Amino acid sequence: MKVVKFGGSSLATGKQLEKVFNIVTSDPSRRIIVVSAPGKRNAEDEKVTDLLIASGLHAMNGESPQPFIDQVIGRYRDIAEDLALPPTIIETIKDDLLSRVNGSQSDPEQYIDTLKASGEDNHAKLVACYFQMKGVHAKYMNPGDAGLIVTNEHGNAQVLPSAYNKLVELRDCEEIIIFPGFFGYSEEGDIFTFSRSGSDVTGSILAHAVKAELYENYTDVDAVFSVNPTFVEHPKEIKELTYREMRELSYAGFTVLHDEALIPAIQAGIPVQIKNTNNPAAKGTKIVNSRDNTNGPVVGIASGGGFCSIYVSKYLLNREIGFGRRLYSILEQYGISYEHTPSGIDDVTVIIRENQLDAEEENHIIEQIVSELQADEVNIQHSLALIMVVGEGMRHNIGTMARAANALAQAEVNIEMINQGSSEVSMMFAVKEVDEKRAVQALYNEFFQPASVLTV
Amino acid sequence: MKVVKFGGSSLATGKQLEKVFNIVTSDPSRRIIVVSAPGKRNAEDEKVTDLLIASGLHAMNGESPQPFIDQVIGRYRDIAEDLALPPTIIETIKDDLLSRVNGSQSDPEQYIDTLKASGEDNHAKLVACYFQMKGVHAKYMNPGDAGLIVTNEHGNAQVLPSAYNKLVELRDCEEIIIFPGFFGYSEEGDIFTFSRSGSDVTGSILAHAVKAELYENYTDVDAVFSVNPTFVEHPKEIKELTYREMRELSYAGFTVLHDEALIPAIQAGIPVQIKNTNNPAAKGTKIVNSRDNTNGPVVGIASGGGFCSIYVSKYLLNREIGFGRRLYSILEQYGISYEHTPSGIDDVTVIIRENQLDAEEENHIIEQIVSELQADEVNIQHSLALIMVVGEGMRHNIGTMARAANALAQAEVNIEMINQGSSEVSMMFAVKEVDEKRAVQALYNEFFQPASVLTV
Repeated sequence: MKVVKFGGSSLATGKQLEKVFNIVTSDPSRRIIVVSAPGKRNAEDEKVTDLLIASGLHAMNGESPQPFIDQVIGRYRDIAEDLALPPTIIETIKDDLLSRVNGSQSDPEQYIDTLKASGEDNHAKLVACYFQMKGVHAKYMNPGDAGLIVTNEHGNAQVLPSAYNKLVELRDCEEIIIFPGFFGYSEEGDIFTFSRSGSDVTGSILAHAVKAELYENYTDVDAVFSVNPTFVEHPKEIKELTYREMRELSYAGFTVLHDEALIPAIQAGIPVQIKNTNNPAAKGTKIVNSRDNTNGPVVGIASGGGFCSIYVSKYLLNREIGFGRRLYSILEQYGISYEHTPSGIDDVTVIIRENQLDAEEENHIIEQIVSELQADEVNIQHSLALIMVVGEGMRHNIGTMARAANALAQAEVNIEMINQGSSEVSMMFAVKEVDEKRAVQALYNEFFQPASVLTV
Repeated sequence: MKVVKFGGSSLATGKQLEKVFNIVTSDPSRRIIVVSAPGKRNAEDEKVTDLLIASGLHAMNGESPQPFIDQVIGRYRDIAEDLALPPTIIETIKDDLLSRVNGSQSDPEQYIDTLKASGEDNHAKLVACYFQMKGVHAKYMNPGDAGLIVTNEHGNAQVLPSAYNKLVELRDCEEIIIFPGFFGYSEEGDIFTFSRSGSDVTGSILAHAVKAELYENYTDVDAVFSVNPTFVEHPKEIKELTYREMRELSYAGFTVLHDEALIPAIQAGIPVQIKNTNNPAAKGTKIVNSRDNTNGPVVGIASGGGFCSIYVSKYLLNREIGFGRRLYSILEQYGISYEHTPSGIDDVTVIIRENQLDAEEENHIIEQIVSELQADEVNIQHSLALIMVVGEGMRHNIGTMARAANALAQAEVNIEMINQGSSEVSMMFAVKEVDEKRAVQALYNEFFQPASVLTV
């Protein structure tokens, strides 16, 4: 059986829902359908989720949420009218939405999460209604009834391992299941949303739970690109990549799939297929456990800005057992997680996401490192970008680093930092943010332009 | 004033002592002379220090130390006879040596340290006797009397900051001071030796204490080589390098100067001149605070084997605040200091010196990391060599990494790891030990062969 997830743009209009219906019903093994809230119909449009958040914030501010609620209901109504659905479905959605917006605001995060989650929840009801109207044996499934129990973290909920014991029963459901993405319920029965792209998480969890043969993730691109298409025109599509490659690419800014959404599917060894709702004939990108390394050492290049480095030096640092641990404890006191820690002999640099620090905190941290660790020098460099060059087996391909470093030198990009050798599937470069685009272009040209591809 | 240190081979024979005498007396600013124990006279010879250790170990084993003691005394007698010194000096040395070898063995480390230190201590007495006989106003200075107070760590003593308050008085001494290297005294008055090449440490401490204009370090090579001469024939000599370059080079196996011996001199900003006792006209190598970057980005290449890597991977590792700290705490429990910690997204690799681990400990550590940190995978790779490519300002020289990586690729060396960007003056590569020599040769050819040198 297959778990199939559709993104917001795939479910934004009645016309889109018809495509979804055709896709689902063209393969009888598509048994569990995870739906997002209606997304944008065009570049200027607003996502239903954003309208729901706005309504909640206005209500908490003592202002009327009604204009936003009206817009949300309007979106569902448009779709329902396009598809000639019975008007009762809009009444159902309206009642649900009003009970949420008029609910308790005593816990603001709970209030917002409950509202946000309605985007998916109500759309799942609408989609189920549509499928039923078309004569398909389908039903809406509430995540709480299905047993999707999560941790009490608003906007960052994690599935509890015990949830899988109940979710596995979805296998035995006779109907096609229409399951809302993005949220689960705490053990106390409250709604908690997942992080960004949370519908991907839901699909991934359900695929794990039912041991799906495939987790299909329908979005609005034909495939995952090998590089950010705003940096390189018409970049190559990736036909197949491994979980590890995907994860490394996601880390530094690939946006097709949510950074950590795949983890539950990965844990169960379930392949993931990225497909395009608007062009289901396109092969898409398959994410698998292992792949043949037949098209060069590099499968993709990702990058992202917003990093900074904290440099700490002290004579004889490498003789001091515990220095690193004490340094990281200081960062931990400020709730700072770090990404990488390249080191010299008498120095260590800690790479962190810049948004974790404000100027005041920065000064406190520097002072504390100097005073507690007797560091000789501490300084912070801002506005760095990390570039990940990713490819399975790359590590044992002699000369890959030389090609990458050459390409950057030719493009006159200074390499601020290299971290290579822990992961077998990536090389990481830090460059100044202003050099990011040029660096990525140079690396792409080196590894993906026809002259450089070893085997096609 | 200058502090001048002579190594063991510079003091191994009467003929060598004549050279030392001529060097010292040719410059009236040479006021403090640090001496080593007599070293090897030829490749088959034994160092006095090694003979002293052997005598101590035999004595503690209940065997006779006499054959070794006789050899030691023989070495001093040969020198004294070469120079026609008064026989009383040999009696003095003999008495001193017997009182040490017959001393208390209740603390074995203390017993050995006391014996070891006699090599330098007695040779300083002999050298002072020789200088006096030649009519020079010179005197032996006992480190305890001079105030060289150190921590209670056998074989790894560290100078106490308070020692400098007393040692500064050496400035006012009218005689040329002949000072034994390699050891100091604890506050309780016991002898404690420094680590390997401890006479360099003594010279460095005294140069700091008296604010010397120069610390001259006489050894048996004309200069510091830019690369290990057992890997490359007739390598270039380094005319000038900075403290930081020296320290980075020393770390990975440069043996001309002891890894950390220069620290006290560096702290006081005192330049260090490496000279050859056997060829005092040679310019040597000067170690300074800063230098003109006029002969290419790379000043030297050093390497050393005996490293291993501990690889730890865990899904979502980069979201876990405190993971690194907890990992390093485990290593700390085993007294393991680590060198470098390159990291991927879901993994971190810890590079350590291999001799800190035995097979049993290795298994314990792996088990503890798996159980305490719920790591998904832990494995250890043995027999790695680290290669440091060192040069001041190299970091901002675009293309240096490309040249290095190219050279390694051409030599078909696989780069196991790169750590670059924390130190501004080095790039570090890890390669398999079997590839070390080939890798160093390739890097030397790239950066030091005439075609590649940008400016001479």
